[in-house]
Amino acid sequence: MVRILVIHGPNLNLLGKREPEIYGTTTLADINRQLSELAKQYSVELDFIQSNHEGEIIDRIHTARESADGILINPGAYTHYSIAIRDALSAVSIPAVEVHLSNIHAREEFRKQSVVAPVVIGQISGFGEHSYALGLLALIEHLKRPGT
Amino acid sequence: MVRILVIHGPNLNLLGKREPEIYGTTTLADINRQLSELAKQYSVELDFIQSNHEGEIIDRIHTARESADGILINPGAYTHYSIAIRDALSAVSIPAVEVHLSNIHAREEFRKQSVVAPVVIGQISGFGEHSYALGLLALIEHLKRPGT
Amino acid sequence: MVRILVIHGPNLNLLGKREPEIYGTTTLADINRQLSELAKQYSVELDFIQSNHEGEIIDRIHTARESADGILINPGAYTHYSIAIRDALSAVSIPAVEVHLSNIHAREEFRKQSVVAPVVIGQISGFGEHSYALGLLALIEHLKRPGT
Amino acid sequence: MVRILVIHGPNLNLLGKREPEIYGTTTLADINRQLSELAKQYSVELDFIQSNHEGEIIDRIHTARESADGILINPGAYTHYSIAIRDALSAVSIPAVEVHLSNIHAREEFRKQSVVAPVVIGQISGFGEHSYALGLLALIEHLKRPGT
Amino acid sequence: MVRILVIHGPNLNLLGKREPEIYGTTTLADINRQLSELAKQYSVELDFIQSNHEGEIIDRIHTARESADGILINPGAYTHYSIAIRDALSAVSIPAVEVHLSNIHAREEFRKQSVVAPVVIGQISGFGEHSYALGLLALIEHLKRPGT
Amino acid sequence: MVRILVIHGPNLNLLGKREPEIYGTTTLADINRQLSELAKQYSVELDFIQSNHEGEIIDRIHTARESADGILINPGAYTHYSIAIRDALSAVSIPAVEVHLSNIHAREEFRKQSVVAPVVIGQISGFGEHSYALGLLALIEHLKRPGT
Amino acid sequence: MVRILVIHGPNLNLLGKREPEIYGTTTLADINRQLSELAKQYSVELDFIQSNHEGEIIDRIHTARESADGILINPGAYTHYSIAIRDALSAVSIPAVEVHLSNIHAREEFRKQSVVAPVVIGQISGFGEHSYALGLLALIEHLKRPGT
Amino acid sequence: MVRILVIHGPNLNLLGKREPEIYGTTTLADINRQLSELAKQYSVELDFIQSNHEGEIIDRIHTARESADGILINPGAYTHYSIAIRDALSAVSIPAVEVHLSNIHAREEFRKQSVVAPVVIGQISGFGEHSYALGLLALIEHLKRPGT
Amino acid sequence: MVRILVIHGPNLNLLGKREPEIYGTTTLADINRQLSELAKQYSVELDFIQSNHEGEIIDRIHTARESADGILINPGAYTHYSIAIRDALSAVSIPAVEVHLSNIHAREEFRKQSVVAPVVIGQISGFGEHSYALGLLALIEHLKRPGT
Amino acid sequence: MVRILVIHGPNLNLLGKREPEIYGTTTLADINRQLSELAKQYSVELDFIQSNHEGEIIDRIHTARESADGILINPGAYTHYSIAIRDALSAVSIPAVEVHLSNIHAREEFRKQSVVAPVVIGQISGFGEHSYALGLLALIEHLKRPGT
Amino acid sequence: MVRILVIHGPNLNLLGKREPEIYGTTTLADINRQLSELAKQYSVELDFIQSNHEGEIIDRIHTARESADGILINPGAYTHYSIAIRDALSAVSIPAVEVHLSNIHAREEFRKQSVVAPVVIGQISGFGEHSYALGLLALIEHLKRPGT
Amino acid sequence: MVRILVIHGPNLNLLGKREPEIYGTTTLADINRQLSELAKQYSVELDFIQSNHEGEIIDRIHTARESADGILINPGAYTHYSIAIRDALSAVSIPAVEVHLSNIHAREEFRKQSVVAPVVIGQISGFGEHSYALGLLALIEHLKRPGT
Repeated sequence: MVRILVIHGPNLNLLGKREPEIYGTTTLADINRQLSELAKQYSVELDFIQSNHEGEIIDRIHTARESADGILINPGAYTHYSIAIRDALSAVSIPAVEVHLSNIHAREEFRKQSVVAPVVIGQISGFGEHSYALGLLALIEHLKRPGT
Repeated sequence: MVRILVIHGPNLNLLGKREPEIYGTTTLADINRQLSELAKQYSVELDFIQSNHEGEIIDRIHTARESADGILINPGAYTHYSIAIRDALSAVSIPAVEVHLSNIHAREEFRKQSVVAPVVIGQISGFGEHSYALGLLALIEHLKRPGT
Repeated sequence: MVRILVIHGPNLNLLGKREPEIYGTTTLADINRQLSELAKQYSVELDFIQSNHEGEIIDRIHTARESADGILINPGAYTHYSIAIRDALSAVSIPAVEVHLSNIHAREEFRKQSVVAPVVIGQISGFGEHSYALGLLALIEHLKRPGT
Repeated sequence: MVRILVIHGPNLNLLGKREPEIYGTTTLADINRQLSELAKQYSVELDFIQSNHEGEIIDRIHTARESADGILINPGAYTHYSIAIRDALSAVSIPAVEVHLSNIHAREEFRKQSVVAPVVIGQISGFGEHSYALGLLALIEHLKRPGT
Repeated sequence: MVRILVIHGPNLNLLGKREPEIYGTTTLADINRQLSELAKQYSVELDFIQSNHEGEIIDRIHTARESADGILINPGAYTHYSIAIRDALSAVSIPAVEVHLSNIHAREEFRKQSVVAPVVIGQISGFGEHSYALGLLALIEHLKRPGT
Repeated sequence: MVRILVIHGPNLNLLGKREPEIYGTTTLADINRQLSELAKQYSVELDFIQSNHEGEIIDRIHTARESADGILINPGAYTHYSIAIRDALSAVSIPAVEVHLSNIHAREEFRKQSVVAPVVIGQISGFGEHSYALGLLALIEHLKRPGT
Repeated sequence: MVRILVIHGPNLNLLGKREPEIYGTTTLADINRQLSELAKQYSVELDFIQSNHEGEIIDRIHTARESADGILINPGAYTHYSIAIRDALSAVSIPAVEVHLSNIHAREEFRKQSVVAPVVIGQISGFGEHSYALGLLALIEHLKRPGT
Repeated sequence: MVRILVIHGPNLNLLGKREPEIYGTTTLADINRQLSELAKQYSVELDFIQSNHEGEIIDRIHTARESADGILINPGAYTHYSIAIRDALSAVSIPAVEVHLSNIHAREEFRKQSVVAPVVIGQISGFGEHSYALGLLALIEHLKRPGT
Repeated sequence: MVRILVIHGPNLNLLGKREPEIYGTTTLADINRQLSELAKQYSVELDFIQSNHEGEIIDRIHTARESADGILINPGAYTHYSIAIRDALSAVSIPAVEVHLSNIHAREEFRKQSVVAPVVIGQISGFGEHSYALGLLALIEHLKRPGT
Repeated sequence: MVRILVIHGPNLNLLGKREPEIYGTTTLADINRQLSELAKQYSVELDFIQSNHEGEIIDRIHTARESADGILINPGAYTHYSIAIRDALSAVSIPAVEVHLSNIHAREEFRKQSVVAPVVIGQISGFGEHSYALGLLALIEHLKRPGT
Repeated sequence: MVRILVIHGPNLNLLGKREPEIYGTTTLADINRQLSELAKQYSVELDFIQSNHEGEIIDRIHTARESADGILINPGAYTHYSIAIRDALSAVSIPAVEVHLSNIHAREEFRKQSVVAPVVIGQISGFGEHSYALGLLALIEHLKRPGT
Repeated sequence: MVRILVIHGPNLNLLGKREPEIYGTTTLADINRQLSELAKQYSVELDFIQSNHEGEIIDRIHTARESADGILINPGAYTHYSIAIRDALSAVSIPAVEVHLSNIHAREEFRKQSVVAPVVIGQISGFGEHSYALGLLALIEHLKRPGT
């Protein structure tokens, strides 16, 4: 059975917990639930982690070497400077997909650059919580291809 | 019925027509067929255009004001410098999604910048022909949201 | 009789056609009519063209060699990267004036640069549709000077 | 009655006073006279000041709060670095138009940037002394608009 | 009662512990004691944390959502690159003040930039341990203002 | 008795004089009055000057050599380019503190740089009129230290 | 028989048509005639196209896949920004040589960069109309090499 | 007896654990063993730590103040952005040597910059696992010098 | 008789007035006296001005049109940003020589650039008060050349 | 009789001497022989020099003033930084052509810039040893033009 | 027997010859002697050259093709701009190690860049004369590896 | 007796030898003769060298350690990139003055930077052959100062 590790980076634990009238009420738990349902349709098993610690995210990517076939990651703010996370993703040689809730290419100049993007399969950004579902579909599709 | 205009930018007409042993044999016609099937599942109607002409792409975006509810666009090389296409997308005020076959953030420095991205909902890049299907799903999902 | 070619660049055909409550209802046709009236006062004949095609704008600048004494041009988004239009204006050696509806120097960084400006007489930007009238007056004044 | 303050920045007092065979013999006094005549046609009253002192220009912009409805300014070399003049124009909230004798966008790289432009209505450059007349017309037109 | 969280970033635990003849003997404990006394005068309660871990600082900012009315933070070296801490401060929507012992604007070029500053109320730098006291006063004053 | 020169740079004379519903009604006179009261508590005498003239500010800094023990300065827009004011502060060797009403690090890119900061003790920015009071306290504290 | 497509980019149609006393009287037709004669000596057949339209140039490069063994191209102003033409040349995998009439490396800074150069065999610039003849010789020589 | 702390930064725990046919089978444990043997020859005692956590590395550098005479560090990806680690090394005032397995000056542009290098004695990069042995020799030699 | 205007820019009035044990006791008056004596040897008459005001320096350069044959100028800090002084020097068309006490090319990066240098004959920097004497000799030599 | 100096810059003496299976076996002597044969057809006399010494190349360019009508130069690595060779070529006022074996515009960023190019007639790069023959033809053609 | 060429670049001949109380008295001869002794332990033969001439260093690298198995080079100031030396090292395909006495990454910005580093095995900098010994060990180790 | 070494850098040997109607007929020999006469007045002995070889200039600077009290140098084009000459001047610790015939600050951007300037006493540029005489006077004056 295909197993995928879902990593939520820094500050994503706050999702849906503040100013619901503006940001909506969808929490990270909701997103994870939706992803799990979607995964079930494809007979894929998901593992979740949220961490504000760069080192913990790296540790978890490492353990994926033994426990996952793919990684779905929203690196949050680390997207823009964590070469250490980039190197971790590159080192474990597991297919990874990068997702973002907001359209990072439409925000401040420094958010347009992803140091992680060059080592993942692809990047999806701008579709809110739906970015995760799209990323999961992209990853599953990738894992299904012969020769991957 | 929801109508979506699918725009393929410059050089995409060559897809699948050269060196099939390397790039695969999927042609633009194949991609369009797959998209049409996917669209049918969501009761969405698709219109297709491929052009190597910046001006023609702009003209077509303009006509979308009367004939489309959303735009799915792979601007090809124009992604990186056509402020005119950006302004066209911005002017017609129709939700648009930007897709790329390759992971543009993993290629030459000049390909990492999209002048179009700041005016679309989101960007999907790196999943080969599957980028289109993901983009279509993203657009349909966006159009379904209340208040859009 | 003095003849002037008026060139409207990409996306300007949409003027006044969308969200009139925000952008006003003045269309390109209205602007052309106002310019024609102003031109008549100075016994100047006007020719108009709007195109979203860089190549078409260049073709038209070339024909001006035989049919115009001056060029009034709003290059739209091409202002910022079309070295080809710049070279066309430079090659035909006809006095040209560059106009912009919005104040391009008060917008995004990339809009502050005009690759066209170094080969025209002068630039007028920020006065809405009135920029055209001012540009026409500037061009007429220039053409009247002895030795031009 | 509409009152407009005309500000001539540094070195403009030398206009027409040196090498008339090259630069022409039009002096600042001539320009002011021409502007006054034009203003009279529109029942507008003009006030003039020329100063080489950044501080004096700022002082004068401040007094315009009580004595002027609009400002016509050629900031000369201060265009390119006087954030203090920019802040003064921004602080008094009086519509202002920026004019230049030469086409600053066709000269040295450092002259292409105007730190003042982002806080004025628009910019006119390149039409010699006629830039002032065009700027005055632009300002009058702006002041006539309802809701200004 | 007003509660304020005081965050000391990386390496600040070493304060006063090495080369006292050069850097003085004031330790972080001393600073915290002085701040506590000052806070008592204003009936403000303080909470302290020092951490060298970016993730821990983020975690702690998050908990402030329930336990603090304001944040006084010296982000140390993270000032210059931790977009994750910036996003944490921005996400919790609690007024924060940034302080620095040394005048960061008088040091190496890379220390002049604070990625945190755009999301705090203000920044105080250069007054040694007194920077903290000034920052506390600034924060208390801010919290007293009506409508905050 | 300790004497401190308070310098208000360009455009600060307009404070509280326009749009009071937005910017508040505190004028420079009010700020000076508040500072005087605060100074009295510390037996410090204050001298005030506001000028829009770079040269006048420099002249006044020079006279401080004979008449002041410290300088509290809000250089306004000159903060960002007046190397001459920087050199004046550096030349007179009197401790100086730089203050700003707004958080300059949260505004336009060009406002983040202070050419003055490298020669003052420290910088305080973002606390509105309270920035001055904090700056005064910082300066007094600095002057009290033995060996200063 | 070897067939070569000769592409003349924007504004080259004006060659020899204006100010013959300065630029000479050699027209594009003359250049094509000279090239044809040279080609005949090598038993090479030439096809010519001149276009001011980026899209048309791309279309024509595509058709070369079936009708040419090599491409001789003077991309004119498109040299400096048309990534779309670059991608077209790269996609068709036909050997191409880039030529320029003037020495682009001795002109404005922006003309020194060729976005096309990285995908062609080589570049020849600065020899006036003779650049074309040299480029043709270079291309023929290249096509003759075994294993090409 | 001389004691040296050996710090292995992020991702180095994976060394020799993946694709041994490519990267070799030398693990971090092997490297540590080799270093220990080398150290023994010089009567030097080694302490080892590997961490993917920036904060943990900083904590450990701090404790070195009491337990080490020198530091041998491969900061991994943190080399390029961790100003916090730089400040930690600088604060503890213990001689440190920076080593890298690969030649960082021959890789991506961003890997050429070390923010740590300015505060260490020297840097050794490019000699695979042997870089560590060379670094240890360099550090021992440095510690032997009189007056260190 | 040849007349030369000697201009001392901002902060130079403080010369020799502070910390004589470090900077020496030579005042501006001393320098002027030495220059006068040197001038007398060449039958040259000198006029002196020192000002901290950019506008005053410009005014004085303008009057030189009627009263001087050459200008010897130390623009002080204005060297690095006063395009207005540059334009004044350029407008009056009187030969000018730029001098600096310190070697500006050996100081902070921003002091290496002189916006004034491109419009003067030459620049002399680094020889302390002797820079003035050398500059005077250079100017006199220049004025003696036939055809100047 | 026309005489041309052929200059081969640094490292070109190694041509064809190493790894012939990769780089081919054509040596510099072979190239010179081919050039001599070609020259003979045009009654042109060639002089050859290869040097790894910048100074020697400059010396030789100088002597060309008396002994050559044109210069054919492959400056090798000096292309990218030897302003001294550029100045030598510029000083002797002999027409020169710059050639490169590889397509320097398709290599590392720093190889795209030629400091020599602005002072030669034109540049030819990318055609292997054939670049020399093309350069010789270009130079001969240039020298034949009347008025050269 | 393994032979290694040791190259000392510009200005290194002065080593130990001036201000011995500051820089020590170790001369280049001393360093060479120490290296020779070390080499003897490994049965390696050394050849030495010191030159201030870029061309001579290149010539010598070329001859190493026949007389050396490895190169130990301190390129001195040429490190930062001699692309010609880089190309020489790259052309001869002999393993090379780059060493520096001082820590070039802790000095002026321009010294941090080595144009040579991308073509050598590795770089050692900052350990004074000991850098050479470490470099020699690194090179010997590299040459011993099977398959080198 | 004071001895000064005069160094003329690359291409200066051509002075006065070409196009005398433009550049004048003053040769390097003339300049040396004039300098010698001037030196005699101050009882200073001069040594001259002109070289196009960077290495030779460095060699000569080194010998100055034993044979000169000062260096007068016009580094020609090496001014802009020879860090090796800079290091040579810095290493010998002999006072040096840098001179230039033309005003390098009024020429191409790359000529404005002198890598040599930070290690010399001062720089004189723009006064033609007179720059040398001024430089000699500056150097003599410097050597006369007590404590030099």
